[in-house]
Amino acid sequence: MRGLLVGRFQPFHAGHLGTVRRLRTEASDEELIVAIGSAEQSYTWENPFTASERFEMIARALAEASIDGVLVVPVADIHRHALWVRYLEGLLPEFGRVYTNNPLTRLLFEKSGYRVERPPLLDRTHLEGRKLRELLASGRPLGNRVPRSVARYLAEIDAAGRLALLRGAATARSGTRRR
Amino acid sequence: MRGLLVGRFQPFHAGHLGTVRRLRTEASDEELIVAIGSAEQSYTWENPFTASERFEMIARALAEASIDGVLVVPVADIHRHALWVRYLEGLLPEFGRVYTNNPLTRLLFEKSGYRVERPPLLDRTHLEGRKLRELLASGRPLGNRVPRSVARYLAEIDAAGRLALLRGAATARSGTRRR
Amino acid sequence: MRGLLVGRFQPFHAGHLGTVRRLRTEASDEELIVAIGSAEQSYTWENPFTASERFEMIARALAEASIDGVLVVPVADIHRHALWVRYLEGLLPEFGRVYTNNPLTRLLFEKSGYRVERPPLLDRTHLEGRKLRELLASGRPLGNRVPRSVARYLAEIDAAGRLALLRGAATARSGTRRR
Amino acid sequence: MRGLLVGRFQPFHAGHLGTVRRLRTEASDEELIVAIGSAEQSYTWENPFTASERFEMIARALAEASIDGVLVVPVADIHRHALWVRYLEGLLPEFGRVYTNNPLTRLLFEKSGYRVERPPLLDRTHLEGRKLRELLASGRPLGNRVPRSVARYLAEIDAAGRLALLRGAATARSGTRRR
Amino acid sequence: MRGLLVGRFQPFHAGHLGTVRRLRTEASDEELIVAIGSAEQSYTWENPFTASERFEMIARALAEASIDGVLVVPVADIHRHALWVRYLEGLLPEFGRVYTNNPLTRLLFEKSGYRVERPPLLDRTHLEGRKLRELLASGRPLGNRVPRSVARYLAEIDAAGRLALLRGAATARSGTRRR
Amino acid sequence: MRGLLVGRFQPFHAGHLGTVRRLRTEASDEELIVAIGSAEQSYTWENPFTASERFEMIARALAEASIDGVLVVPVADIHRHALWVRYLEGLLPEFGRVYTNNPLTRLLFEKSGYRVERPPLLDRTHLEGRKLRELLASGRPLGNRVPRSVARYLAEIDAAGRLALLRGAATARSGTRRR
Repeated sequence: MRGLLVGRFQPFHAGHLGTVRRLRTEASDEELIVAIGSAEQSYTWENPFTASERFEMIARALAEASIDGVLVVPVADIHRHALWVRYLEGLLPEFGRVYTNNPLTRLLFEKSGYRVERPPLLDRTHLEGRKLRELLASGRPLGNRVPRSVARYLAEIDAAGRLALLRGAATARSGTRRR
Repeated sequence: MRGLLVGRFQPFHAGHLGTVRRLRTEASDEELIVAIGSAEQSYTWENPFTASERFEMIARALAEASIDGVLVVPVADIHRHALWVRYLEGLLPEFGRVYTNNPLTRLLFEKSGYRVERPPLLDRTHLEGRKLRELLASGRPLGNRVPRSVARYLAEIDAAGRLALLRGAATARSGTRRR
Repeated sequence: MRGLLVGRFQPFHAGHLGTVRRLRTEASDEELIVAIGSAEQSYTWENPFTASERFEMIARALAEASIDGVLVVPVADIHRHALWVRYLEGLLPEFGRVYTNNPLTRLLFEKSGYRVERPPLLDRTHLEGRKLRELLASGRPLGNRVPRSVARYLAEIDAAGRLALLRGAATARSGTRRR
Repeated sequence: MRGLLVGRFQPFHAGHLGTVRRLRTEASDEELIVAIGSAEQSYTWENPFTASERFEMIARALAEASIDGVLVVPVADIHRHALWVRYLEGLLPEFGRVYTNNPLTRLLFEKSGYRVERPPLLDRTHLEGRKLRELLASGRPLGNRVPRSVARYLAEIDAAGRLALLRGAATARSGTRRR
Repeated sequence: MRGLLVGRFQPFHAGHLGTVRRLRTEASDEELIVAIGSAEQSYTWENPFTASERFEMIARALAEASIDGVLVVPVADIHRHALWVRYLEGLLPEFGRVYTNNPLTRLLFEKSGYRVERPPLLDRTHLEGRKLRELLASGRPLGNRVPRSVARYLAEIDAAGRLALLRGAATARSGTRRR
Repeated sequence: MRGLLVGRFQPFHAGHLGTVRRLRTEASDEELIVAIGSAEQSYTWENPFTASERFEMIARALAEASIDGVLVVPVADIHRHALWVRYLEGLLPEFGRVYTNNPLTRLLFEKSGYRVERPPLLDRTHLEGRKLRELLASGRPLGNRVPRSVARYLAEIDAAGRLALLRGAATARSGTRRR
């Protein structure tokens, strides 16, 4: 039975890759579905990269690390939590196990009877994604926080320029709202 | 002519019940429509309960209090304020009087020519809903702030566990945004 | 446990009323939910009446027949069959039994584990709705095919005029498409 | 007070232009709003041209005919007839008079209290639009059925090629459905 | 080739008018499209006025200033940044030049190959809009920050009352969220 | 550069498989994206299978045939032809070549500058899908028209029962409309 790992991957980083490698090693006869959440979002501070770009990062990182048996699927938001699990069941190939650290995701899947596990190596993914966006926006190096192929791709698409601009826009808007 | 009371009822509490009882007593020959707003929302800190759960709370509270003549109707958001009154007119059975403390609701209905009144006993509903969600999230008792049947139902569906989790998620996200 | 009867009720007719009466009599301790499907549709040949008007018809017919214990709920289409049962579960108060003659509705509910029964007296509802729309469009009397209160309401809102117009529009458009 | 003329303008033809000229002449102190309906539709047999292309046709035809005082506004469908008039009121600048031959449009506006008139010269617009699409799809000349500037524009964007292709697709699909 | 100026115009103020006048003067043979963004929004603190009201303000201000050659088009949000430029291309008549100070708008248009320029006189438009909403909400005079015809229109529709109310609602909601 | 094959795969049949095999053989260093169109549709006569089920069919058929280098991606409809290519570009990993027999798909991609080719062995795919649905609905064997693994999967999910039911529903509805 396939496993399912859901994330936004803004960007796809070394923690994600380590988790995917571990899951594929521990259960090598079991494919892993990597669902790219909020696929319709892009060019915002929280979701700077399109699903296409995130798919590309994941594909390159998996190729670099010679990991196979992974199905990458972009998934648009449905904005109705009560329908979300059912929505994924209708979209993805069959899966039997869910890996997540997100408490809401855990709750929704458990209510639907799924076995939910904490993914290895991924305790602070959410914070790591934000940290990486901030490093990019500040023009600082990401070091080994992302796979090499991802670092090259981020340079190709000038991620640093985009993030700096989006951080500025988010700050301006937030300032407006604070009033 | 029926009256209309709009709310989100997250959860349905004693203030809501008192208001409904009073309206049904003062105008006993006039049915009351209770519209459950933001019906499509659930599993968020602001809107933790599904429309189904909120409908269930209201149905149980009305049965417990032996109140009849109430039509409960879940209403999804339309996200276009300029169309909202027209949208309700096309969805609900005829009504002639609107009860609300929400100033925007009042403005929109008055622009459409409705008579709008402040509901009795319900001056601080919005605050009360938030207060109750916070009590639930902290695992503290609600006392007589909710009807008994609602308290039992909230225990049945483990509302306290859900609210604790959702408060955590909302705080994490808000922290992200503050950055 | 409540029962659920789903229909479009374009218009609500004597067959519907007979079914509701029977269900309320046979299981008088069990409320019946009457869900008005395609609630967002109106002013088309297939769906001429708004949810508001259909709600009004049902409310008047139930009052005329002194039937209580019925919860009327307008339900907008979700346009995703795979999510439909889950969508209703999140919107309506709890139900345990479903009454339908529609084979797709039956299939979807049975796949979700519901007990589905054929409603009494309602074998040809779909045909009856169309027949009534055609009678209205032709300005012919409906006789006892609809409850008296519904007949009066249809006269009040000039249903005959509306249906004649909508039939004309549907025919014109269908002609266009045939090309 | 402005007048409002609603159409899909697939394509904008000589009948439309004649009507606009007449309305601008008869009420020269009154601007005319030309609303391009189904603005989000394109590349279908019924709606082959984008709103952008239809806007362009109208702009060129008005310039060619030296007609001013016309406000052209693309309007996306809202798919809820009961809200349609209110939707237009929130989108368009104030108008007080509506020109239409479409009986449903007439009904909806009259229910909202508008004065509705039949536009001059435009009795068979709907048929004319279809006729022109068929001529284009067959590669036959449109003659003076469209303004010269529109004919040139249709040639520029290879409307004939597009229509031939879309007619083929519509026929194939209709055949599928007939089964 | 037409120019395109995108804004929300909440409200349309003297800075907007000065920009439009300048652009029409500098390139008098080139029409200017003024796109009213977030057209579906209204009755919120950030977007208090309907597209209809904003269109009306712009039409009156242009008439007062005797500026012609401007095409005003309301444009609803599409909520997918990656599609936004393509969406505008399908909706608006052809344009070849874009005027904006918004860095995200600039980025998206430049990625699509457009020439983007900073509009004259409009460096702080965003701040000016907020400032004007705050003045209105506080009942203070706008002075010459808006064209006279706009000031009169804002008085006609009681903009001050609406803004005071919306500021109150936004503050209450923001307070809720801060918790 | 990857190739892209778009289809609805209702169901995935031997013609599809042959095409995929050929494309993977001819360009073995080039991954192939198989996009499952109308992913949100299911339980209709035209689109009987969920995206999940179609994904499963394709995954099993590729495994049975030992074909790798294929990325399967469900893609929901966007219902705006003018945005469709841009939408796919934002969702899928980079691709440079498109395989299709659908003339509209060809037109839209060519307008966006793509190289479009006819897929080998797939001249009558659309007809084949309909033919297979009809065989299923009639309870007749599919023979070697589908890969063995797909035949087994269709039996597992009782595709024949579902199709028989959906054909009945489609016929009933079509009869209604004909009136």
